[in-house]
Amino acid sequence: MRFTVNREQLLKGLNMVSKAVPQKAELPIFQNVKMTLNEKGLELLGSDSNITIRTTVPYMVDGVETIKNAKPGSALINCKLLFDNIRKSESEFIDFELIDNSFFKITYDGTVIKPNIIRAEEYPDIDLSPVGETFDIAANVLSGLVEQTAFSASNKETRPIFTGVNLEANGSKLTAIATDTARFAKKTVDLNAQVHFNVTIPAKKLVDITKSFEDADMVTVYIADRKAMFSFGNTLISTRLINAPYASAKNIIPLTFNYTLAVNAREFLNALDRVSSFGQTVTLIVNEDELELMSRSPETGSANAKISTFHFSGNNFEIKINPQHVSDAIRALGSEDVTFSFISNGSPFVVRNVKDASVDYLLTPYNRW
Amino acid sequence: MRFTVNREQLLKGLNMVSKAVPQKAELPIFQNVKMTLNEKGLELLGSDSNITIRTTVPYMVDGVETIKNAKPGSALINCKLLFDNIRKSESEFIDFELIDNSFFKITYDGTVIKPNIIRAEEYPDIDLSPVGETFDIAANVLSGLVEQTAFSASNKETRPIFTGVNLEANGSKLTAIATDTARFAKKTVDLNAQVHFNVTIPAKKLVDITKSFEDADMVTVYIADRKAMFSFGNTLISTRLINAPYASAKNIIPLTFNYTLAVNAREFLNALDRVSSFGQTVTLIVNEDELELMSRSPETGSANAKISTFHFSGNNFEIKINPQHVSDAIRALGSEDVTFSFISNGSPFVVRNVKDASVDYLLTPYNRW
Repeated sequence: MRFTVNREQLLKGLNMVSKAVPQKAELPIFQNVKMTLNEKGLELLGSDSNITIRTTVPYMVDGVETIKNAKPGSALINCKLLFDNIRKSESEFIDFELIDNSFFKITYDGTVIKPNIIRAEEYPDIDLSPVGETFDIAANVLSGLVEQTAFSASNKETRPIFTGVNLEANGSKLTAIATDTARFAKKTVDLNAQVHFNVTIPAKKLVDITKSFEDADMVTVYIADRKAMFSFGNTLISTRLINAPYASAKNIIPLTFNYTLAVNAREFLNALDRVSSFGQTVTLIVNEDELELMSRSPETGSANAKISTFHFSGNNFEIKINPQHVSDAIRALGSEDVTFSFISNGSPFVVRNVKDASVDYLLTPYNRW
Repeated sequence: MRFTVNREQLLKGLNMVSKAVPQKAELPIFQNVKMTLNEKGLELLGSDSNITIRTTVPYMVDGVETIKNAKPGSALINCKLLFDNIRKSESEFIDFELIDNSFFKITYDGTVIKPNIIRAEEYPDIDLSPVGETFDIAANVLSGLVEQTAFSASNKETRPIFTGVNLEANGSKLTAIATDTARFAKKTVDLNAQVHFNVTIPAKKLVDITKSFEDADMVTVYIADRKAMFSFGNTLISTRLINAPYASAKNIIPLTFNYTLAVNAREFLNALDRVSSFGQTVTLIVNEDELELMSRSPETGSANAKISTFHFSGNNFEIKINPQHVSDAIRALGSEDVTFSFISNGSPFVVRNVKDASVDYLLTPYNRW
C-alpha cells in the first residue's frame, strides 16, 4: 500500500470519520481509522459500533488530482494520532508508504513519522450495504426536522426510548417526534416517495449526523430493521436504532383551547431571560391589558417584567411555566410570531407559529412536572 | 441607600471584583459583593479570603456623571446574581433602592428585580490599609515579569512553596523565581526605588492579578509580612503570601558550558511539535552539520524532524528533553533567537536569548526527572 494524497482532502476525510471514533473506546480497535486504497479512492472508515462513518477521498476533486502514486492496500491506524500529525503539516501533499505491514512511513515537510499499524483484517466486520425503505430528502429539510425536535428528547438513560427521535412515515409524510415526557415536539415534512416505517434513532447521534451534512444538497436515507443509513456526497453514515416501541402520539395535541396568547418572540424571550434568575419557575400573568412574567424565591428574591406587545383572548389567566422549556420551544420555532394556546393552568399547553402548521410543541405547566 | 448608576461602569466594576468572588465559597458570605456608596463613589468589594479586590465606580468618569441620586449606605448582595442580571439589561442607567434593609429594588427597561440583601456588618473585616515596602512599577513590566516566570511554578499542592513565584528585592533590582523542581525560571527587572523584601506569592493569583491590570499604566505595589497589595486606577487587589521560606537560588545557573546550540524559535517549536506525539520525551541529536529531533514509543511508532537553521559549537551531542518544558521556555522568551547551553546530557541546561540577560530558564534532561 502506498499513495501520495492532497493534505486538505485527507484532513476533510479524517475530520468526517473522526466524529465516529471515540476518544476512549471500549474495544481499543475502534480508536483506529480503517484506511483502504481501492479503485474509488482512499476510503476512510471510523466507528464506535453504534455509529459508523465511511467517507472516500476520490482520485480527482474538481478536475484536480488528489491521489498520486497509488498502490492499493488497507491498514488500521490510530485515528487521533494520524489526525493530530496531519493537521500540523503544511505540505500540499502527504506521502504514505506501508512498510512490512507493520508501520506507515509518512513523509511531509522534512518530517518523517512512522506510526505503527494494525492489519485491516482485525477490524470488526460492519455491514454498510444499503437496505430497507429508502427516500431522498433535501439536507436542509432533514436538518430542520431534527433541529426542531431533537432538543425535546430526554438526556436521561433511565428510559432509553425517550433519548431518541421517533421517525414515522406512512406514505409521503414524515413525522418526527421527541419527548422527555415533560415536553413534546412534533414536526411533519413532505416526502417525494411512498415509504412506510416507524423507527427511533438516538437523538444525539441524529443531531451529529445532520451536522455532518455540511455542503451536501441531498441525502439518501435507508431505514432498515436494525439501522438507519444516511448517504450524501462521498460519505455514508450508519447508526443503530433504539430497539423499543415508541408510544403512539396520535391525537396528543389538543384541538380546542380556552385562552390564546400571541407574543413577539424576541420580546418574550428577553423578558423570560430577565426574570428567570430567581427560582426555577416563571409565572405568566395575563389579561387583555397586561402581560407580566414573574419569579420569586424565598432565598434570593423576586423579579417582574412587563411585556408591551401581545394579544390575548380569554379571561384573566395565570400559569406557572418552565422558562427553559418555553425558551427552547420558541427558539426552535424560529419565527417572530409565537402563539400560546392554553386550556387551564393545570393542562399541557401548545406553543406554535400559527403561520406554520408543520411544527407543534406541547409543554406541561409547573404543577404537572 | 439609593443611587442610579451608569450600567457600563457598574459592569466594569462587577467584572473586576467578581474575579475574587468564588463560585462555591467555603464561607457563603464570600459569594456576596459588598456595595458601599460613600464620598468616593460606589465601592465594590469581593473576596475569597485569599485574594480581595476593591474597586470604586467614581461619581464622574471623563467628565460625565456616572452616579446620580446618591444616598449613602452599604449592603451585601449575591455577586453572580447581580452580575448576571445587570449584564442582561440594556438601559444606560440602573436604579438601586435599598428597601427596609432587606432587599434591593433594582429597576431597568421595564424590569424590576428585588434580590435579597445581607447587612454589610456581617461581612468579615478585611484590612486593606497600605503597609510595608512600596514601589511603583509599569504595569507591562510587572506583567512581563510574571508571564516569563509563573508558568514554571508547580501546580501540585504537595509542596505549597513551589506553587508560588518568589519575589526578592535588594535595593533597586527585583528578581522573580519560579520552579517546580524539574524546571526553573528567573527574571530580573530594575526598580526606581530602594526596597528590601523576599516573599512568595501564589503563582495563579499573581497571574490573575496581572491580567486585571488591563489599561492601567502604573501599579503601586505594597509588600508586607502577610500580604502583597497592588493598586492601579480605582482598584486595589490584596493577596495572601505563601508563608514558608523559599530556597535560595543564588548561583543555581551554571556559568560554563561544553556545548552551545543556537536555533530559530519558530522553526524549532514547529519541529518539536511535529515529533512530540510519539512518547513523552524528545531526543535532540546534533553535530556541526545536522540537527535532528526524534521521538519513539514501542506502542505508537516514531517520528523524526530535521532542522535546517542552527549553529552548534561542540562535538556530537545527544540529550533527552521534555518537549513541553522546552516549548514553554522558548515561548516565554518571546524572541526569535534561542540559545541552548549544555554541560552534559545528564546535567541541567540553560535556555535563553543571548541578547536579553534578564531572563534564564534552567531545565533538567529526561534522565534527571
